[in-house]
Amino acid sequence: MLSTHTEDTMTESDFIINTFFLLFCGCLVMFMALGFAMLEAGSVRIKSVAVILVKNIGLYAIAGIMFYLLGYNLMYKDVGSFIGTFSTWVPDDNAAKSGDFSAGYASAAGWFFQMVFVATAASIVSGALAERIKIWPFFFFCIILTSFLYPIIGAWTWGGGWLADMGFKDFAGSTIVHSVGGWAALTGVILLGARRGRYGNDGKSFRGNSLPLVTLGTFILWFGWFGFNGGSQLAISSVDDAIAVAKILGNTNIAAAAGVMTAMLYFVLMKKRIDVPLVLNGALAGLVAITAEPVMPTKLMAMGIGAVGAGVMIGATVALNKMKIDDVVGAVPVHLAAGIWGTLAVVLTNPEASLMTQIIGILAVGGFMTATTLAIWCFMKYTIGIRLHWSQEDRGPDLAELGVKAYYMEYEEKTTSM
Amino acid sequence: MLSTHTEDTMTESDFIINTFFLLFCGCLVMFMALGFAMLEAGSVRIKSVAVILVKNIGLYAIAGIMFYLLGYNLMYKDVGSFIGTFSTWVPDDNAAKSGDFSAGYASAAGWFFQMVFVATAASIVSGALAERIKIWPFFFFCIILTSFLYPIIGAWTWGGGWLADMGFKDFAGSTIVHSVGGWAALTGVILLGARRGRYGNDGKSFRGNSLPLVTLGTFILWFGWFGFNGGSQLAISSVDDAIAVAKILGNTNIAAAAGVMTAMLYFVLMKKRIDVPLVLNGALAGLVAITAEPVMPTKLMAMGIGAVGAGVMIGATVALNKMKIDDVVGAVPVHLAAGIWGTLAVVLTNPEASLMTQIIGILAVGGFMTATTLAIWCFMKYTIGIRLHWSQEDRGPDLAELGVKAYYMEYEEKTTSM
Amino acid sequence: MLSTHTEDTMTESDFIINTFFLLFCGCLVMFMALGFAMLEAGSVRIKSVAVILVKNIGLYAIAGIMFYLLGYNLMYKDVGSFIGTFSTWVPDDNAAKSGDFSAGYASAAGWFFQMVFVATAASIVSGALAERIKIWPFFFFCIILTSFLYPIIGAWTWGGGWLADMGFKDFAGSTIVHSVGGWAALTGVILLGARRGRYGNDGKSFRGNSLPLVTLGTFILWFGWFGFNGGSQLAISSVDDAIAVAKILGNTNIAAAAGVMTAMLYFVLMKKRIDVPLVLNGALAGLVAITAEPVMPTKLMAMGIGAVGAGVMIGATVALNKMKIDDVVGAVPVHLAAGIWGTLAVVLTNPEASLMTQIIGILAVGGFMTATTLAIWCFMKYTIGIRLHWSQEDRGPDLAELGVKAYYMEYEEKTTSM
Repeated sequence: MLSTHTEDTMTESDFIINTFFLLFCGCLVMFMALGFAMLEAGSVRIKSVAVILVKNIGLYAIAGIMFYLLGYNLMYKDVGSFIGTFSTWVPDDNAAKSGDFSAGYASAAGWFFQMVFVATAASIVSGALAERIKIWPFFFFCIILTSFLYPIIGAWTWGGGWLADMGFKDFAGSTIVHSVGGWAALTGVILLGARRGRYGNDGKSFRGNSLPLVTLGTFILWFGWFGFNGGSQLAISSVDDAIAVAKILGNTNIAAAAGVMTAMLYFVLMKKRIDVPLVLNGALAGLVAITAEPVMPTKLMAMGIGAVGAGVMIGATVALNKMKIDDVVGAVPVHLAAGIWGTLAVVLTNPEASLMTQIIGILAVGGFMTATTLAIWCFMKYTIGIRLHWSQEDRGPDLAELGVKAYYMEYEEKTTSM
Repeated sequence: MLSTHTEDTMTESDFIINTFFLLFCGCLVMFMALGFAMLEAGSVRIKSVAVILVKNIGLYAIAGIMFYLLGYNLMYKDVGSFIGTFSTWVPDDNAAKSGDFSAGYASAAGWFFQMVFVATAASIVSGALAERIKIWPFFFFCIILTSFLYPIIGAWTWGGGWLADMGFKDFAGSTIVHSVGGWAALTGVILLGARRGRYGNDGKSFRGNSLPLVTLGTFILWFGWFGFNGGSQLAISSVDDAIAVAKILGNTNIAAAAGVMTAMLYFVLMKKRIDVPLVLNGALAGLVAITAEPVMPTKLMAMGIGAVGAGVMIGATVALNKMKIDDVVGAVPVHLAAGIWGTLAVVLTNPEASLMTQIIGILAVGGFMTATTLAIWCFMKYTIGIRLHWSQEDRGPDLAELGVKAYYMEYEEKTTSM
Repeated sequence: MLSTHTEDTMTESDFIINTFFLLFCGCLVMFMALGFAMLEAGSVRIKSVAVILVKNIGLYAIAGIMFYLLGYNLMYKDVGSFIGTFSTWVPDDNAAKSGDFSAGYASAAGWFFQMVFVATAASIVSGALAERIKIWPFFFFCIILTSFLYPIIGAWTWGGGWLADMGFKDFAGSTIVHSVGGWAALTGVILLGARRGRYGNDGKSFRGNSLPLVTLGTFILWFGWFGFNGGSQLAISSVDDAIAVAKILGNTNIAAAAGVMTAMLYFVLMKKRIDVPLVLNGALAGLVAITAEPVMPTKLMAMGIGAVGAGVMIGATVALNKMKIDDVVGAVPVHLAAGIWGTLAVVLTNPEASLMTQIIGILAVGGFMTATTLAIWCFMKYTIGIRLHWSQEDRGPDLAELGVKAYYMEYEEKTTSM
């Protein structure tokens, strides 16, 4: 989303339609917060649903406030090589108001669109850590992630910092959004440890409570991804932009479709029964994989990128389970593993990308995120504590932390009379 | 939404993009009908789910037809001080077709956008009265509300009537939509009385049946609100309009986020466990509060307005419970209390608003809605009856009124053979 | 959707806004895939939910890939009277890039919009056949439907083939999309036979497992239909187009509303209790009915078309049940019966339509679809088999085919200690 599209030749009507377009796309991306919430609510056990819901509404609120107070300017304002400035975002449309439309769109539309991206990164984390992390440490982590960590990575890249200078390419954020969330999730699940009994005899009882909710969330994410990738063009006001955006939506869709079919094929080839959550994650892995470069690939190439993304996701899922790393929703396989693949795959279709630079970008982001998030998780682990007591976990976060259940579905036939 | 944006200088392309923009926003607002349906379906007890669903689909259909047959022209056609005309809406795009684009957008786009607003007002009522009002009296009330009551209030304000003349400011309808629904809900719940046993010993058993549905509904409402507030600018075809719409979406989002955080903070400060529905209502209260004036506030001010809105909502929730007024979803605290606050708060940022006029507007709307809705509820109460028989209520509206349950989730292992 | 709107006078800005508009509408239609998934997941019995979800995600992926590989060009590329070419779609925006904007919008936007229509046709089939068709034969059928059957019908009509030449009118696809899906569903349910016990003593136990999911799906479909019908104008770049699109959205909404009210009225007149799924299907039947001609009718006429659509749907539902044809979601009454009505009703408002031609179109599509789908179902029935073994069906598709349940909602109070 590095703003290469702003031109001195922008007209008033360009400015207007780009603003409308970014707001439309921003609304779609905002809706992804609901997608994650539903996917996660369906993927946890019945005793952890209410807490994951409150985490999801909370993280979206935190992202919306912290990216305003700190994150945006740290990511975009006067970025040197590494960071922007520590200050609060202020809209600035003076140029446009006096007839210079080179900014391309209203500043608040840009802010809105970037803000919903931060929320996405935070959403990725909540699912992986579900069912055993406490509410408040999770929210504290979200504050750090959306105020500092994501904005710093963003400054290096979309903000115009050192990785951008090197020529690192990540169109809509396979690395910058999805891997950032994925790395944070990975260090978190390692530090937290698996859910009690997850890798014991009754592992099967760790199935999610509601496949309809998981499917609902996945479809919403797919829908929202059209805004995520399409909007990252940042403009639709020229013929080239319009063609590019249309191509992005087509590629985004077919990469996801190929991810679904890859996961299906896997089950056919392995002569296994279809695992629904893995098929749904196939769609998401395809989406993550195409996110780094949805413009350049042909449709066939986009299918390939999505298919391999799903394959990588399946491999990572198997590997994590072997290592007994307990990622409740498969956030690490989907967002980190497929995100790395997608970032590498840019070199297949974008002649401006260099494999070495892509690798440097991946490693730099991975190194930074691993180091900082490990430090934060460890700090919290040995101070306020991050994990529920085992008796709370057994009882379930909903009853232990909130004192409620997520569902009250018994028909209580009352027999009292008037 | 008083149409101050129409100008003689509108061009064909302005007309087109405004039409597109209004239709986009109208679709988002239409989706709020689903948000209310899901929020309410999750908030009622398991035995009242099917009926609340049928009420929600029914009220949306009623609003769509009655606002066409009667409401629109009563609100907008040749409005004097108090009402427009009793006639059916007819599209009129003759001016635009002959090159005069001063209407700003296609007449049917305006109708569509206004129509989904009416449905919102009706949706607010259904939740509050859930679990004990009969289906048909509720539908009858919806007909009156969408044909006459809302349009009359609308005529006073957006239609250009006496409150508009006085300078009453309510950009997207904190009072005109949300309080209108809220007042109707308030008189309804008072006349109906609380659900049986609600304030007795087993009050805890009145928890909603599904938090995922409540969260789903809340996120959908948040999403739809971007269309609600953004579209109320009624134009995006000038630089100023585009900047305003972008600012509106940002302010709308941060007010909701501040509402969420305020509710969270309340639980921290009160050393209580987080109550998920109240946190979700914090978002909605923030949204209602910013609705009266989403353009003028800075982001910091928008946060303040949303935060106070959530505070007001919490206070009203506590107060209603003390008074044993049983509002199932908190419609009165969210839409009426936060709506009043939002309408007053306009004076903080809009120099054209006067506190006295805002108060007059609130009182006039409150007086009119209280008097008319009390009359309607009373009329129905003493004729056809509005409340289920106590035995029906105990059995549950679903079985009593529809003869079904909303869920059939038992696995019935059949043992029959071929 | 026959592209009568492309003009030599298209400008760059027309091209851009039409592209944006088609992508917006395409996203809405894509979302209908979720609507169908939720509607179907709620309508089946609890033991069939997981399989219907996987079918829905799978069919959407299949449609997205096959319509790219084969379907699009068979439907649109160098169409003679009957078919286009057997080749893979390739984007072509060379004209636009060199200043000729007569295509009207980016080719990939056109592809995207058409592709989501195919998925709709496939979605219609899955619901009708639920609970007893095996997964893989269903997917195989989807491949045929989206690669060949739908594209051939499409070539006859929107592709410019013989039915278009005759003057057959079907604006957004009452016949071309909805009846195509409906005919495939009808032959399928007849060949498959009813679910075991459906017309026996315990017929009541065949109620869907979740009304909230059915309602969720219906509202999403209603929302998506604005893109389905509105986008079929294929342009919003002229005053006439903008006015037409606005009118389409209004007519679409009021036809659905009239469908809801008609179903309600039916229950009042029959002195029966409201059946929620039938009311929801009333909305969908209204939507299907208005789809063939949403531009020309006045609002009053649109209400009539929607109302009769719902009436036809109710009649067909009763008739199918009498014939013991077991259509789980009412796909045939909604999409086929109301689709036929809508296609005939075009002659009421569109002076260019002829009743004879409309009948010929309906019969031709019906004949072709009946013959081809019967052949495919029969071929599969007598080779790989299409129906679950009765013991699998009794156990339920979820456990039999996937080895899982869709919900794990028991609170398993663990008593183990650390």
